[in-house]
Amino acid sequence: MAIFVDRMARLKRSGRKAGVDAFFVNSEPNMRYLAGFSVSGMERFAGLVVPVNERKAMVIVPKLEEHKVKEQSAFKDIRSYDDSESPAHLLRQTIADAELEEAVFGVEWTLPFRFYRMIAECSSKITVREVSTLFSQLRCLKSQDELKKMEKAANIVAKGIKAGIDFIKPGATEVSISFEIEKTIREKGGESVPFCIVLAGSRSAMPHGGTSSNKVKEKDIVLMDVGAVYEGYYADLTRTVFVGNVTKKQKEVYDIVAKAQEGAINMVRPNVRAEQVDDATRKTIQDAGYGDFFTHRTGHGLGMEVHEEPYISKDNRTALEPGMTFTVEPGIYLPGKFGVRIEDDIVVRRKVEDY
Amino acid sequence: MAIFVDRMARLKRSGRKAGVDAFFVNSEPNMRYLAGFSVSGMERFAGLVVPVNERKAMVIVPKLEEHKVKEQSAFKDIRSYDDSESPAHLLRQTIADAELEEAVFGVEWTLPFRFYRMIAECSSKITVREVSTLFSQLRCLKSQDELKKMEKAANIVAKGIKAGIDFIKPGATEVSISFEIEKTIREKGGESVPFCIVLAGSRSAMPHGGTSSNKVKEKDIVLMDVGAVYEGYYADLTRTVFVGNVTKKQKEVYDIVAKAQEGAINMVRPNVRAEQVDDATRKTIQDAGYGDFFTHRTGHGLGMEVHEEPYISKDNRTALEPGMTFTVEPGIYLPGKFGVRIEDDIVVRRKVEDY
Repeated sequence: MAIFVDRMARLKRSGRKAGVDAFFVNSEPNMRYLAGFSVSGMERFAGLVVPVNERKAMVIVPKLEEHKVKEQSAFKDIRSYDDSESPAHLLRQTIADAELEEAVFGVEWTLPFRFYRMIAECSSKITVREVSTLFSQLRCLKSQDELKKMEKAANIVAKGIKAGIDFIKPGATEVSISFEIEKTIREKGGESVPFCIVLAGSRSAMPHGGTSSNKVKEKDIVLMDVGAVYEGYYADLTRTVFVGNVTKKQKEVYDIVAKAQEGAINMVRPNVRAEQVDDATRKTIQDAGYGDFFTHRTGHGLGMEVHEEPYISKDNRTALEPGMTFTVEPGIYLPGKFGVRIEDDIVVRRKVEDY
Repeated sequence: MAIFVDRMARLKRSGRKAGVDAFFVNSEPNMRYLAGFSVSGMERFAGLVVPVNERKAMVIVPKLEEHKVKEQSAFKDIRSYDDSESPAHLLRQTIADAELEEAVFGVEWTLPFRFYRMIAECSSKITVREVSTLFSQLRCLKSQDELKKMEKAANIVAKGIKAGIDFIKPGATEVSISFEIEKTIREKGGESVPFCIVLAGSRSAMPHGGTSSNKVKEKDIVLMDVGAVYEGYYADLTRTVFVGNVTKKQKEVYDIVAKAQEGAINMVRPNVRAEQVDDATRKTIQDAGYGDFFTHRTGHGLGMEVHEEPYISKDNRTALEPGMTFTVEPGIYLPGKFGVRIEDDIVVRRKVEDY
């Protein structure tokens, strides 16, 4: 459990620097990251109260979830309530016990409005401030152990997509291809497959389209964007393939996207800024005359969530650091015709030899 | 689209009664219910601004999602922003256009803290108030069309569990049974299977346990709790079955749970209060001496979300009305030994002949 002691200490340190007296941690991934147990704080109220001083963290959970905290963590100060009790009283008591009635509370951006009000109503002297970046700054630097899990997740997704490619033939529906991918991922040890998007033909031009019963036709392009979880960590890969012939135009677009991706990946190293990686894909695609058809950011961080810091986007001046993980996924979408996206998961290493 | 005009009008009416000047609707199910399109407002900012006066609703969405609004709805006033723009400016402009700078905004309890701050920062004269019940009061009364979808969803889940039961044998893992259920549901037309919990042996005594690689043994009890979506509507069923022999104790507990469920379902009719249905299951189980082992509420509403109003729980004085849908799912959990839960999905009809 040394890892959780260390993470908690780092969070407290960052809170003290930021002028925060305590954190209220409500999101499932942040609770899991800091304390090791997996409890949803969304429907029923749950959360960690973490004073930045030497006082130990406390957790409030529904009685139904208490066993998870005990089984999955060494957490000591557990406060639980059942369906007939009010979590607001328990929160007020917890805040009083830790002498936080005049505290500045740092919270996540996702904190539900009702829970924000519950904190604010504990005392008129409490201030609530969003400090999402303090959490993401911790979580975006992966340990070797986390990287191993992510690599395994990516290998599993790659096997799933490979099975999907083998399954593609004229007449197959997008759903059936998607199901083949998902089945393979589950068989290979994937815990869950939160998305498995298959888009055939002109539907591949919809960057946020959903899998349908549309059938693959001869000469179609098929785009597969798949995310899966292994031991709590995400992989997210996209492949675009061709059924039978490839037109000259399709090949041209595919090669531009591949070149844009390769160029961007090659420049990833410590101290390069996220926006520079975004600029790299964008410039290649713009120079080829397709700038208007690359309509999204280059990528997003990846880890315990499928979208987290660092975002590989315009104006993100974050300097890359060893241990950061993210996708690089340029695309070109020609509405009504076809789209191409290629997505891989990248880790920043200290030295080339680390690769 | 008449249905969306009607829903929007009913929401506005309830807002005027409650002293709200406008709604900000951020949750995916509420946006879908009111306007027909399915856009997540969580990672990237999105939402409906709905003044309660005669002014038409406006929607703010990321540019990437704009096509969904256009394809899935007849929505007119669409305001979109791309990844390089700030949604805060767009929100401020939208609020100014609708002259809502001094408005009381009604929001959902789930509204993320950051988006709450974005609204509050548009003008110091804005008040933000949680009005979740106004949304749930609309959504908990299902139309015939919605009920048809829910019935279909329940039939699909029942077929899935049937396939799971046929698959159970000593040596099968919980995961493999779960996968068989999920596969069947997908083949029968289920859109997604958000949870498919299989617990064998003493693990059935964990009311919130998760599917594992634990293997079914001879004489085990197997509990299956499965939720699936059909055309956007949920079903949620639990079955508990026995492998080979049933002990006297197991049969006793099963019969008590079945009797508790049957008694509660039989009393469901308009004007009965939700808490009375909860009392009914609880009394049967208490009278049989197992009161301490029924550790959760009797049920929850069901519809576009798996947990919604009305909750069938102690102290919920909501009077049941025709068109309400919810689960009735009593259980008895003997820690370290076994657990039994039986869950069905119930609709309140006006008259017995409607059943």
